[in-house]
Order: sequence, then C-alpha cells, then structure tokens
Amino acid sequence: MTFAFFGEMMLRLSPPGRELLLQTPKLDVAIAGAEANVATGLACLGHDVRMISAVADNPLGAATIGELRRRGVDTRHVIAEPGRMGLYFLTPGAGLRASEIVYDRANSVFATRSADAWDWDALLDGATRLHLSGITPALGPNTAAAAIAAAEAASARGIAVSFDGNYRAKLWEAWDSDPRGVLTQLIRHADILFGNHRDISLLLGKPFSGDGPDRRREAAEAAFAAFPKLHLIASTARHVDDVDSHRIAARVDTRDGGHQTEELRVSGIVDRIGGGDAFAAGVLHGLLDGGDARAAAEAGLALTALKHSLPGDASLFTRADLAAFAEGGLDVRR
Amino acid sequence: MTFAFFGEMMLRLSPPGRELLLQTPKLDVAIAGAEANVATGLACLGHDVRMISAVADNPLGAATIGELRRRGVDTRHVIAEPGRMGLYFLTPGAGLRASEIVYDRANSVFATRSADAWDWDALLDGATRLHLSGITPALGPNTAAAAIAAAEAASARGIAVSFDGNYRAKLWEAWDSDPRGVLTQLIRHADILFGNHRDISLLLGKPFSGDGPDRRREAAEAAFAAFPKLHLIASTARHVDDVDSHRIAARVDTRDGGHQTEELRVSGIVDRIGGGDAFAAGVLHGLLDGGDARAAAEAGLALTALKHSLPGDASLFTRADLAAFAEGGLDVRR
Amino acid sequence: MTFAFFGEMMLRLSPPGRELLLQTPKLDVAIAGAEANVATGLACLGHDVRMISAVADNPLGAATIGELRRRGVDTRHVIAEPGRMGLYFLTPGAGLRASEIVYDRANSVFATRSADAWDWDALLDGATRLHLSGITPALGPNTAAAAIAAAEAASARGIAVSFDGNYRAKLWEAWDSDPRGVLTQLIRHADILFGNHRDISLLLGKPFSGDGPDRRREAAEAAFAAFPKLHLIASTARHVDDVDSHRIAARVDTRDGGHQTEELRVSGIVDRIGGGDAFAAGVLHGLLDGGDARAAAEAGLALTALKHSLPGDASLFTRADLAAFAEGGLDVRR
Amino acid sequence: MTFAFFGEMMLRLSPPGRELLLQTPKLDVAIAGAEANVATGLACLGHDVRMISAVADNPLGAATIGELRRRGVDTRHVIAEPGRMGLYFLTPGAGLRASEIVYDRANSVFATRSADAWDWDALLDGATRLHLSGITPALGPNTAAAAIAAAEAASARGIAVSFDGNYRAKLWEAWDSDPRGVLTQLIRHADILFGNHRDISLLLGKPFSGDGPDRRREAAEAAFAAFPKLHLIASTARHVDDVDSHRIAARVDTRDGGHQTEELRVSGIVDRIGGGDAFAAGVLHGLLDGGDARAAAEAGLALTALKHSLPGDASLFTRADLAAFAEGGLDVRR
Amino acid sequence: MTFAFFGEMMLRLSPPGRELLLQTPKLDVAIAGAEANVATGLACLGHDVRMISAVADNPLGAATIGELRRRGVDTRHVIAEPGRMGLYFLTPGAGLRASEIVYDRANSVFATRSADAWDWDALLDGATRLHLSGITPALGPNTAAAAIAAAEAASARGIAVSFDGNYRAKLWEAWDSDPRGVLTQLIRHADILFGNHRDISLLLGKPFSGDGPDRRREAAEAAFAAFPKLHLIASTARHVDDVDSHRIAARVDTRDGGHQTEELRVSGIVDRIGGGDAFAAGVLHGLLDGGDARAAAEAGLALTALKHSLPGDASLFTRADLAAFAEGGLDVRR
Amino acid sequence: MTFAFFGEMMLRLSPPGRELLLQTPKLDVAIAGAEANVATGLACLGHDVRMISAVADNPLGAATIGELRRRGVDTRHVIAEPGRMGLYFLTPGAGLRASEIVYDRANSVFATRSADAWDWDALLDGATRLHLSGITPALGPNTAAAAIAAAEAASARGIAVSFDGNYRAKLWEAWDSDPRGVLTQLIRHADILFGNHRDISLLLGKPFSGDGPDRRREAAEAAFAAFPKLHLIASTARHVDDVDSHRIAARVDTRDGGHQTEELRVSGIVDRIGGGDAFAAGVLHGLLDGGDARAAAEAGLALTALKHSLPGDASLFTRADLAAFAEGGLDVRR
Repeated sequence: MTFAFFGEMMLRLSPPGRELLLQTPKLDVAIAGAEANVATGLACLGHDVRMISAVADNPLGAATIGELRRRGVDTRHVIAEPGRMGLYFLTPGAGLRASEIVYDRANSVFATRSADAWDWDALLDGATRLHLSGITPALGPNTAAAAIAAAEAASARGIAVSFDGNYRAKLWEAWDSDPRGVLTQLIRHADILFGNHRDISLLLGKPFSGDGPDRRREAAEAAFAAFPKLHLIASTARHVDDVDSHRIAARVDTRDGGHQTEELRVSGIVDRIGGGDAFAAGVLHGLLDGGDARAAAEAGLALTALKHSLPGDASLFTRADLAAFAEGGLDVRR
Repeated sequence: MTFAFFGEMMLRLSPPGRELLLQTPKLDVAIAGAEANVATGLACLGHDVRMISAVADNPLGAATIGELRRRGVDTRHVIAEPGRMGLYFLTPGAGLRASEIVYDRANSVFATRSADAWDWDALLDGATRLHLSGITPALGPNTAAAAIAAAEAASARGIAVSFDGNYRAKLWEAWDSDPRGVLTQLIRHADILFGNHRDISLLLGKPFSGDGPDRRREAAEAAFAAFPKLHLIASTARHVDDVDSHRIAARVDTRDGGHQTEELRVSGIVDRIGGGDAFAAGVLHGLLDGGDARAAAEAGLALTALKHSLPGDASLFTRADLAAFAEGGLDVRR
Repeated sequence: MTFAFFGEMMLRLSPPGRELLLQTPKLDVAIAGAEANVATGLACLGHDVRMISAVADNPLGAATIGELRRRGVDTRHVIAEPGRMGLYFLTPGAGLRASEIVYDRANSVFATRSADAWDWDALLDGATRLHLSGITPALGPNTAAAAIAAAEAASARGIAVSFDGNYRAKLWEAWDSDPRGVLTQLIRHADILFGNHRDISLLLGKPFSGDGPDRRREAAEAAFAAFPKLHLIASTARHVDDVDSHRIAARVDTRDGGHQTEELRVSGIVDRIGGGDAFAAGVLHGLLDGGDARAAAEAGLALTALKHSLPGDASLFTRADLAAFAEGGLDVRR
Repeated sequence: MTFAFFGEMMLRLSPPGRELLLQTPKLDVAIAGAEANVATGLACLGHDVRMISAVADNPLGAATIGELRRRGVDTRHVIAEPGRMGLYFLTPGAGLRASEIVYDRANSVFATRSADAWDWDALLDGATRLHLSGITPALGPNTAAAAIAAAEAASARGIAVSFDGNYRAKLWEAWDSDPRGVLTQLIRHADILFGNHRDISLLLGKPFSGDGPDRRREAAEAAFAAFPKLHLIASTARHVDDVDSHRIAARVDTRDGGHQTEELRVSGIVDRIGGGDAFAAGVLHGLLDGGDARAAAEAGLALTALKHSLPGDASLFTRADLAAFAEGGLDVRR
Repeated sequence: MTFAFFGEMMLRLSPPGRELLLQTPKLDVAIAGAEANVATGLACLGHDVRMISAVADNPLGAATIGELRRRGVDTRHVIAEPGRMGLYFLTPGAGLRASEIVYDRANSVFATRSADAWDWDALLDGATRLHLSGITPALGPNTAAAAIAAAEAASARGIAVSFDGNYRAKLWEAWDSDPRGVLTQLIRHADILFGNHRDISLLLGKPFSGDGPDRRREAAEAAFAAFPKLHLIASTARHVDDVDSHRIAARVDTRDGGHQTEELRVSGIVDRIGGGDAFAAGVLHGLLDGGDARAAAEAGLALTALKHSLPGDASLFTRADLAAFAEGGLDVRR
Repeated sequence: MTFAFFGEMMLRLSPPGRELLLQTPKLDVAIAGAEANVATGLACLGHDVRMISAVADNPLGAATIGELRRRGVDTRHVIAEPGRMGLYFLTPGAGLRASEIVYDRANSVFATRSADAWDWDALLDGATRLHLSGITPALGPNTAAAAIAAAEAASARGIAVSFDGNYRAKLWEAWDSDPRGVLTQLIRHADILFGNHRDISLLLGKPFSGDGPDRRREAAEAAFAAFPKLHLIASTARHVDDVDSHRIAARVDTRDGGHQTEELRVSGIVDRIGGGDAFAAGVLHGLLDGGDARAAAEAGLALTALKHSLPGDASLFTRADLAAFAEGGLDVRR
C-alpha cells in the first residue's frame, strides 16, 4: 500500500509556554497542514507515504520538505516554486482561555498554482490510495479544480480515495464558491470519509435530528445511500471540559453497522491541533492491519489521544507507542 | 472617563518552568504592581488610563515605563529619580507546593519619595477617577501621607476615588503604623471599595460572624453605614483545590442589594498573581459600560478567570477576549 | 519639533544564534520597517515622534503598535484594518557567510490600502517634519500615490520633508513602475535627503565618475542644482571587511560644503540591519540640537555605530548612550 | 547521625517541555542516581550526609560531584577515575502518554570498578548509617560484591544499614545473577527496609495474597520473621490516574504494628522520577526527629508529594518547606 | 554518481553559548560522524548520497536516521540494532580557550557489530563511489575488518573508493592495532585521498622535510608512487590565530601537478568541528562538476569556510550558497 | 595553606545574548563578589578555600551558598540572616558599546551587619592567609570596621594578609568616608598587594610620573617603603582595543625587582567581569606552587586570559586547564 497525500503544507508559528502571541518576541515553529499531518502519522507507523504539494522555493519551503523527509514521508513529489508559504499563528489556550489561530495563508504557492500544472500521471504513479481533505478545495478555484482532477485521476486509475471533511466556512466564504457542489464531486470518488453528521448534513443539504450515536448512524446511512462507492465513515465526538482536558469517543460506520468506542478522558493536553488528522491516520492504520470497524475506531482513538500529548501538529508515534498505549499503564516505562 | 492610578511599580523575577528559585540560573521578568496591574487591565480593554508613580532613573525604571506604555497606559506622570526599583522574587508553585514570594522592595524610589514631592494638581489634571490600593499606604509614612493627600486632592476636585484593600500585614508591621487610622482616612473618600468581610472587619474593628454570602452582605452593610460616600463593594471568594485549580465566585454589593455569581472552576492555572487586580479592572470595566452590580460582578469574574491563564501579573485581554469568554466554547478558535 | 513618519511596519523573524533559517524550530521576532526604525531612534533620544501607518487588525498588528509605543513613539495615527502584516525572514550571517533576507510582504494591509484612505489633514496635524523613504513608493501604485500625496500635503502646510533613498530594485521591478518619476515627485519637496552618489545618479539619470568624497560632492552639487528646496544630503560609505567587522564613514553635504568623518572600524557587529535608519535618526538628531554638517555627520555615525551592537532593527539608544560613546572608553562602566 | 550512601551517580538527559526525545535538538540535564537522590533529600533537610561513589575523571564527573556538593552532600568519598559516566535519557510523559527511560549506563566507571578497590575502613569512617539500594548489586558482579562488602563492613563496625529494594529485573537479567541470594546477604544486615509485598515476596520466594494494607502487613511480618535485625519496613502504594495526577499512600510497619496514611491526591505532577527516593529520605528524616511509624510515614509522604512538584530526580526541600506543607494552604505565600 | 558512505554516526552534546560543559544544565544536540558529515555536505549540494551504518534501536538512533533523512541522505542502509549510540561532548572554545572534546563512544552498536554482519552486495548495490575515513578502522577489530571488506568489495565491483585519513592516535592506541597495516590495505583501493604530509608520513613510515607546499608535494609524490590507483590527494593547511579566527589554504595534488589556493582568513568562526569533512565534500563536489585540481581545491576551501559559520558538525549549504560565496560580498543579501 | 576570604557575595543579573537590559524579559544570573571570585578561582585550582560572609536568609542567599559550595569553597563560615542580598545588573557590551553595570547593593545583609557581630577567632580558626579587597571597607562604616578588625585579627594570629585595591570611588563617596585612612590601616597588615600605580598613588597621596613599567616600579618601591610588611605587588596593564578584544600584560614587583610579562592579546572576549579577580587567584596560585615573581605574573596572566572566555564573574578553571593554556595550541583538543 502506497499512500499519496495532496494538500498544502504550512508553517505554524506559536508563542512559547502559555504566553499570548508576541507577549515576548519568540516563536516556536512547526510544520503543519492537515494532509501532511495524516501523512506523517502514517509514515511514523511505518507505512509507505508520499506527499504531493507545492512549497516556496526558499529556505522556508526547503525546511518544510526536510521536516517531512525527517518523518519518513517521500517528498519527491513536492514541487518548489517562486512564491510564499502559507503561515498560521497559533496562540495555545490555557485554563478557560481557548486557543486561537490567525491564518496568513492567502496567495501561497500552493493556493495560486494553476490546476493544470499538476501532472497526475506522474504524481500518482505507483500510489494505491489518495487522501484528500476539504481544506484543499476550499482554498480557491485553483485548488478546487486540482482536487477534483486528482480524485478523478485516482478513480480512473483504480486508486482508492479517502476524504476528510475538514469543513472551514471562512475559507469557502472568501471566494465565490460552491462548497456542496465541489465536495460532492470529490466524495463520489471516495470509499472512506472522515466526517460527522454535520459534514454529511452540509453535503446532502439536510439536517439530522436525534442525538449521539443514533444521529451519527442516521447520517452515515444517508451518506452511504448518496455515495455508492463509500464504504466507511469515521468520526470523533469531542467534549471539551476545559482547554487541557477533553473527552473523546470514536465512531466508525460501515454499510453493515457501526462501532462506537467508550469515551476516553484525554487530560493534560499539550497540543490539541492535528488531533483529527491523527485520528484519520489511526483509522487508516487500523484498517491496513486487516482491522474491522472496531479495530479502526480503536486505533484512531488511540492515535488521537497520543497526539494530544505532543507539541506540534502531527502524530510522531510508532507502532511500539501504539502497542504501549493499548497495553495501558501510565507510570514510567524503564 | 480618565482613570488615574497611584502606586508602586516593581520588577517581578521568577524561575522558568516549575523550578525553584535559582535551581538553574535564569529568571523571567515581569512588570508588576497592584495598581499598575489594574491600570493595565483597563488600558487593554480600551480605556483611558494614566499611571502616577516614581521609578528609578536607570534602565530598570525605563523598562518599567516602556512596558506600561506598551500596554497602552499613559506614563507621562511617572517620575524617574535616582534610587532603586522595588523587586520581588516569585517561585511559582506546582501540584501540592504553594507559590512563594520573597520581597525586596524596601527603600525603593517610590517608597522613599517625600509625600510633598507629588504635585496633585498636575498629576490629577483631567482625571475623572483615582484608584488606590492598601499597599501604597502600607509601604511607610511617606507613601501613607502621599496616598491620603491624593485621596483628599481627588475628593476636593470632584474626582471619584476607588480603593482596593490589599491588606498586607507584613508591610504595616514593618514600621510604626496605624493601618486602621490610615485606611479610614482613605476609604472615606471612596465610592467603590474592593474588599471582603475580613478587610471591612479590620477597618471597622469588629468581626462578622455567619458564613458565605450572608457574612459578606452584613459586612458590606456595615461599611456602607460607616462610609457615606461608598456605594459599591466588590470581592471574590476563592477556594484553592490545588495550585493549578481554584474555584472562584465574585460578589458585588450596593446599598440596594448584592449579586453573587456562580462559582467558577478555574483549572489549568498558569499564573495566579494579579488575579485580584484583574478582578478590580473587570468590575470597573463592567460598571463603565453602564452595568449594574450583576454586570460588574460577571465582568470581574471573567477578567480574573482569564488572567489566571496568562503569565505575568497583569491582564492583557481585550474586549474581544471578554466577548469570546462570555460566548463560551473552549475548543480552538480559528 | 514633531516628527511624522509614514511607512510600513513589519515583523522580522530570524533564527536564534548563528543558525540557518529553521535549522532548529525557533524564531526571534523584532518589529521592523525603515521609517519606524528612524522614528524609534529619534523617540529614544527624547524627541516627539509620530508614526503614520496601517497594520493588521489582529494580535500581530497590535503587538507592532505596542512595541512602537513602548519605544515612545506616538501610535495614535497607526490604523488597524483587516488584512495581513508584511513579514521578513532574516538569517543573520557569520564569518564569511552573508546575512540573507527572504521577504514575505506582498499584499500587506499597508501595501494594499487605497491612497485615498489616508487623511493627511488629520495625520499631519501638528507635525513639523515628515520623513519618508524610498521603500514606501516602491511597494506599489497605492503607496506610491500615498507617498506623493503625503509629501504634497506636508509641503502645502509648510511641514519640512526629509527623504531617505533606500532604493530597492526588486520592489520597483515587481510592478509597472517609474521609480525616477515617482522619486522626483517626492524629493522635490524635501530639504534633507539621505542618499549617496548612486541614489542621485539614479534620480538624475547620469553617472558620477571619480572616487570617494569627490564623487559624493559632485553628486550632491548636482542634486542641489536639480532640487531647489534641498539643503542637506547625508550618506555613509561602508566597507565590509567581514560579516562582523565593517568600516564606516559618514558624510553630510550642504550647499556651502561638506563634512566627511574619519572612517570608524565597527567590529563585533551584532546586528547590521537598520544601520542606515539609525544613521538617519542620528543626523536628524544632530541637526535638531542646532548642529552643523559636522555635528550631524558625527551624530549619525555614532548612532549607526551603536546600532550595530544591538539585536533588532532599531536604535534604542538614549542621549546618555550617545554621550558615553562620544566620551569614548570601552571598558566596563560602573 | 552521619549518613553514608553507596551507589552510582548518573546524568539524566531529557527533552524540554513535553517533547519527544530529540524532537528538537535540546536536552535538559539533571544529576541522578537512587542513592544520591536520598542523600540529597536528607542533606537539604539539614542532615550530615556523605556520598560514596565513583565518577568519570572528566568534566561530566566533576559536574556530578559539584552538583552533589551544591546540595550539601559531602563528596570527599567520591572517587574520580578514567572511564565513562552512566547516562539515562528520560522522555517525560504527558496526558495519556507514559514517561519513558532509555538507559545507557553499561560499562560505567562505577559498574566496572573492582569490588576490592573500595576501602571500607576509610569510606565508612565516622558514619553512623549506611544506605544501600537494590540497584547497586544489580549492576553486575563487581557492584554486587562491593555492596555486600559494604553492608558487612558497616555491620561489623556497628553502623546501621538501611536498604531500598528498587528491584530492576532488566538489570539483574543482563548478567548471570542470583538476585535473591545477593539481596538476602544485604538485607540480613539492615534494620530498615524500603519495599512492599512484591519486594518481600521476591526475597522470601513466596507470594502474599489478600489485598491492600493486610497484604502489606502479612508481608512485613514475614520479613521481620526472616530477618532478625530488621525493625522497620516502609513502602508507598501508588495509583496512577493519569501521567499528571497520582494518588499515593505511605505505610510504615514495625514489629509492633503499622501505620498507613490517608491516600493523598498528588496532582499537577511536574516530575515523578525520584519520588521513591524522596519517600525514603522523608522516612529517615521522620525517624531521626525521634518520630514513630506514623511520623515516619507522614514525613515520607510529604517529601514524596513535594518531590513530584519539582523538575529533576532529587528532593531539594528544606525543613521550612516540610513545615509549610504540613501547615497546608496552597495559595501564594508572601 | 551515487555516493556510499560507511561510518559511525554519533550524537554530539554541547553546552549553550560559550559555557563550560554543564556550567548550566543544558545541552545542545547535533548529529555527527565524519562520514555522515561528508554525506550531508554532498546531499545538501544535490548529490545522490547513501549512508551505510548501524545505530541503536531506540529513539536516539531513530533521531539520528531522521536527521540524516532531513538533510537528503538515503538512510535505507542504516541498520537499527539493540545497543548504544556513540556520544561525544564538545565544549566549544572561546578567545584563548581551546575547544575540548570528551568521547563516550566505546561499545557502540557500530563499533561492536561483527564485520561479517555487513552484506556488501546489498549495501553497495548501485553505488558508484564508496567513501571511508580513518576513524572507522580505528574503532576496533570489528570495524577495521569491516572497512577493509568494504573497500575490497567496492574495488571488486568497480566502485571508486575515496579515503579521508582522519588519523586519531587515541583510538588506535586503545586496542592492539596496526594502523599502518590496516590503512595500507584500505588506501591501496583508493583513487582519492584526503590527507597531508603527516598522514602520508605515517602511512609510508618516513618523514618529509622541507616546508609548506614543497613538503606537501613531495609527500604526495611519494604516495602516488606507493599507491598505483591513487590519482588525487587533497589537504588543507590551517593556521589558528585564535579560537574564532583561522587562516586556511587548500591544496590538491594530482600525478600531473598540484594547485594550492590563496590563504583565506576565516574569522568569526561559529563552529570549527566538521571543517575537514566539509572540505572533503567540497572537493568531491568540485570534481563532480567536471572540475580540475584547481576547481576541486577552491570548492573544498569554499565549503569548509562556509561550514565554519554554522553550528553543528555538517555543512548544510546548497549550490546557491556556494555560488553566492564565489560571487563575494558580505553585506546583507536581500 | 588554607585561604580565608572576607567580602560580600551578590547576585549578578544580565540580559541574554547582546541585548540591552530588559530588551526582552529574561535575565541570566551569576553568583558574584570580588572576594568570592578569587576564592572560586583558587578552589577550582584545588586549594583549600573558605568564604567568610553574610547572605540573606532566603532562597537567594541559599543559592549563593550552594553555588560557592559547588565550586569547592568551604561555606561553613557564611552566615544567613534576615535582610536582602546585594544585586547588580550587568548589560554586556558589544562592538563599540561598553558594558554597563547598575548596582543595587545598598542595605544588604552584608553591608549592614554590625562589625562586632563577626567572631574572628572562630572565623579565622585554621586559616593561613586572609584575603581582603578594597570593596568591603568602601561599603560603609560597618564593613570598614569589620575589615580592619579582620586584618588585625589575622595579623595578631600570624595569618598572612593579602589585599586587592579594587578602588571604587562611587562607593566611598556615598558615605562620610576616609578611604586613605581606612586603606592604610588595612594594607599595613598585608604582605601581598594587588594594585597599580594609581592605587598606590591614592594610598600614599602622591602622583607617579613617567610611563609604563618604570612608573609601576617607582610606585611599587614607594609602597614597599611605606609598608614594611609588604613584599609583593601585582597588577595588570590593560589596553581595550574594542569590547571584545583587549591586550593585557601582568606585572609582579618584589623588593628585589619586578617581572613584567609580554602583552597578551585577549580576543573573542566572552565576559570581562572578574578578570582582575582571576588575576589575583592566578598570582596566589603561582606563588603557592613555589613560584617566583615571574611564575606568579605568568599564572595570573594565564588565569585572567582564560576567565575572559567564560560567562560569569569567576574563573572555574582547573590545573589541567592552566597546563593546556601554557602548552598553547588553540585548535580542538580531542
């Protein structure tokens, strides 16, 4: 199995400790991007992973590529071109103060690259699964067209497609967009969808009433009905008790039925960003190991839980880490 | 409304992380001082705020002025003279270890300045409210006389006076002082008092029995009776569960009645110092916006809760931050 | 004398120590911008200084304003609007490796603001000198028009205008520009010009032969001939021995004659960025104190020399620092 | 009372913040070693304490000695010889991720020193108690023989011996060892044993059924029966709720009976390593002050609780800190 | 051209700033190793480079592999096995204090791996040049045999061999070694040798008299005579003026003649470690671009000069950096 | 030989890197004090050294004691009493910006301790040399009387006395002092004096004309004539080329004649503070090893040169470091 990921890579800049942005003049930097996060999560678990992206032809772009390479991602399909990197500034929250993000990603190399410039024959050569997220088509007409072209190219070549909703209203609203139309064109190629009832509601244009697991099942069934290729839908339900302590349950639905995990209390949170991407990586990993819905849900929950303990956007955990987590026991391992 | 604050500004020096003082040879520095903290809190909320103080005529004093200016406080009434800055060393606590403060503030420029040297005509020109705290008169006879002169000058000019108890026994005991006499001379000019039943008990020389809100109301009524100009008393009740997690309720009493908020669990505390000053700033802000006792109490509680999430002594939050807090929701804001 | 500065303020991001950009994931941040640097230099010397600019209506813009305010610059004429801050990434050099800058300033709030949006009546009210630099008009048609409007408005109100060449070919080449035409429209209002024979050559469209001081004098005389309002031209001649050690001489020409300082060896350089801006601040300061060409040249040289010892873009030195520099002696001052 | 401690001193290297090992290229260093931790704990409480050890004759060994000396431990019996220091790499856990230790201590100066090279006459001269732990004999035949010789030498000179189980299966399994035989030879000289039912079970070769305090008492009684010199056994029961929050109870058994403390919730844990060593130091301190089993258990619990709030392996707390802890109250101490 | 490098990779640990080792308890970490440094230098210049090595099967080994991968080195031939990583502690010098290194590399996974365990058919498959250094055979009999086997395997397959002397007396003296015999067996396969007259003298067992370039030429000719496959010898001559300022000249000899560069003053040195490895990478790069002795010497000198400006053991410079260096000019590049 | 040192210990606080004081809110801390610096220098060279001082009875005082102990100084004669520590703020210079010190040492525990409170019988018991400096008597009448009492007590007990001039006009001028009278009472007990012609001129009330070594010799002979017990005078002549590069020569005069070293260029200076104290330690060390004037001068010059390479006030160098310095060679030592 060779995974291909298509999406923007960004630099994340955040103040040290629990300071406000520029309270003191220092920033910590992390390499970010929803798709690159999932790619990293899988690469660190030992899978064969490739990134398809475009970065600035400057030291920032080079550092981005280098970091992905460090994590074991194949970066030979990351193009460096003149332009700027997308950035985002994260102020991590604390106590009763929520984390805040200021985006500065407009006009990036990735967002402004012409859809025609991507050579899908070459980029997808040898891949067996393409993973996309809802952020890429939301960036503007270029990337919307590119994402659709990618999904179609994959589909045409028999490459499986997975899609992570990641709906960001602000991005879609910044241009003359048709999110439902675009997303439909993408998801119809997907066999795996990461998204909850709200994502599906947006996609199908209808609300889902009820509560908790029932509502999620109802939405999943509607999605399966609407998208014949789709065979698995995964999502998390998160309850934020305070900034440092959440409760999370994972759910995986197939056409046959669904599995919802116990709710896990994730306390002592270090960095919540990328939790959803780690979940996606965990689910894909769980499925790869021959797992069923339950195995996928549990692996997704485990990887997202671990991610919350780590600074940075991406899960860097290995199979040994997942095994230790499954085994339990939180005292020092010697 | 132009606020004037009179009080000492200090440097706070504290070890990084959760280390003991000088466990490693690094110190983080913050600009501190009860009155400057309230001033900062209000300035960051957009109010017109002026500091009246004296600092050392050296780079430490200049940095203190610069930091206040950065926060939006008018520092043109801060005098720089030969001498030393007051300092304090804070060892932040953790788990079951309490935070500890070592003061090194004796003989500071502020504390040793002659009461006659302050020109209240000039310093209060244009101000509509003067805020004082119980720390200033406790520093010694110079500042006690200066604080009384300030309150009298304000009163004579029709400038409202607010007063924050901030009773520090160690300071009063370090010289031949009469705290009750001095504080009475100050509070009789005040329309707003920050203090609880213990402060009022000290002031009036009588205990208040009972428990919780009732005791606070009883004390408030006694204070209203004793001080005819007083029309609002604000206080917090804090329960320390552990160093990182407190429960706080705010109370505001007027002659008509009182409002006590729900108790709020403030977990994941980053820095508890200045919590009371942020409360005062929040209450004054709540009143300024035309708020009643309830609005004042809620604004005070909100600002003190936010302050606990921030390193340093002062609240740096904006109106947007208060609005986001009021709206609730602790997951990442994008 | 009240100075007004019009120009863009940016964030500068640089790696710690002598690392390459993102060699480790940390960045130091400084507030930057040629005009803001001159403004800072003068404010720290005690002058009355105002900044006219536009920043992003987000925590980055707020931090920029706060930092200027900390330095004593009046920021009430800095507008915060939706959009992005200009950024630049500086990799400081070392030994035989030159410093490198990667700009990411396109499409900033300042650069995209309509020329009509600046209300020069209000912005210049009370100012006695307006300082501009060649960077502002180079950013694009909006800022070129705004700079010309500013110079004309100043001129019309009898406000003196100074201009710092700061020619940046890359910026002018990025759009359909006419640098010579634009600069001519600006400099015809100026009485003070910061620039050397190369700047003047570009402006007048003719080369200056010869060498050293003679060539500079010849160019200065040509400029005086071409621009009747101009009465002072200041420039530095810099010889870079290695990254950490330069030799600098300052020159000031008036219509009567010129003064060129001794060449000063500036070793142990900490941060060379903003050296020209500190020079401009020093020259303006030297003139303000009633100085002649010689005094202006020496003050400019002193402030630029000191600036090279300081991290960040701007001179933060006081009159006491200039006096100590003039007095000489490099051993510890106690 | 003069305490002598015999054991290895190591360097502990750990990533900053909550990062994974080498996530960024920085390491924090602490001086470590079970016996040195107990020695430090007692020295900081004002006791007369001596370390007997061997370190590398290089700057790492010198730094180790210097740090012990800083803490008030007499290091004149620490020998510096050619060779290497033992190291360990600690990745502190967070949330649901357990802390992990990678040891790199093989072939250290201490582990490879010949048992004959220790001159117990000189090393124990003037000591009144020798403290050993189960780590020293587990390191290999040299240190096993040295530990036995130390215990015998102490016993022969009428010096009391205390022993902390600290059973580390991995160390014993790395060579052709007889842990039960070796430990028996050590513990028969001890009057105080730190260990729980599992340690005793290993020692006596029989399991203890039942639950909680009863099982511990049964095991203690069996140990008292087997080892006639033994008169006190101390242990903790720890429940790990999550990485940052444990519940701990302390128990001390004498031949007359036992005392078990209330379970204490230790939240906001900063560094759990060395918690057991701080407990041992606290118990020895409690006994020295003329305390009984209850006093010893409470002092042990207090010191281990405080240790969890401190970065590094060792308790650095003073008698004043213990007194403040006993007094209670977790708000800021001024 | 595909380069293969065989050698040990280590962690380098050094104090921050200009401190002594453990003056404060912080260490900066860099990935090190002579061969890995040359590999990195070439990879960053865009060449196809592979590392053959063995690291510990723990997070330290994984970080080592990750860092090489980040720099663009193919690490698929780096084996992870149980054991320890070699370490070294570097105290950077300053002023008149020389840098000092404490090695802790004995018994590493690499040094103790059996010579038979390396499968040269697989490891060299596709390589066109194998680069070795004199450190590997000096580590002990295992690595001496492995290095010889590697050179022979390369030779047998028609893969060119280059060899960097790197003579370390302490390593050879630590075991019952025959450096001259071993090195002869290696160098007889080499076409390129990095080493000066002292290395050749050791190899041939005879001294070279005279001075400067003449002595180097004489030694080179003797080496060419003794080793028929050898066709290029490269070396640097370094004069250490003080810790921060050296003068370096490069020399390349071929059978036809030699080229010696001008002496270059390398001032403001940031990190001198790995300067020789960067020189080797530069020479190999210069030759690859079709360069002659002069081009090779200049490229080697340029890369070593740049390396001295960079923290860490390895050159991270690109072709663009080399081009900028060649172009000259040390003022800020915008 | 057991050295006793009497003097104040202080905390030094300085900004990181080359920043101005509080340019960013971080401070590095070092333990300082002229006499403690000499004590440290000798202790690190392996001598038996005792500190006699008074510190605050708080964590700052405890850290001061701990740090001295870490360096191998016997601190059992350091008294901890209520009060404050003396502080000083150092802004390290760079390039053409001189280092600046802001003192905040008034009213320290040491300065305010009654002269009667020092029990010289106990404090000097077992000492063979007492070292004083001119800073102690300059602090005020208490310490002036204490220093005289110390010198007299030493003299009466046959303990040699050495004295370091360290003339600080500002300190003497802060009170109604008679520096010449006080210093005369001290130096008449001394056999070794650290001071140059300016110190002697002040002491004897007469100028010394001439230049360089001759003037120093003339002054030394006058001092020998005036003080019969004096038999050695040591001084340095420093030429400050820039902040980072000085030239230093050492001179030692005895009654028989003098030795002046070559001038040594000390470049790449890291920290110049404490250079004189390291010189004193080096001279005393040189004499202890049976050295003559030449040996003493060379040892003093070597230790002060090394000190300039080290952050902090005190020399931490060992005999091995001195030997390496004497051997020369500034390239990496492996």
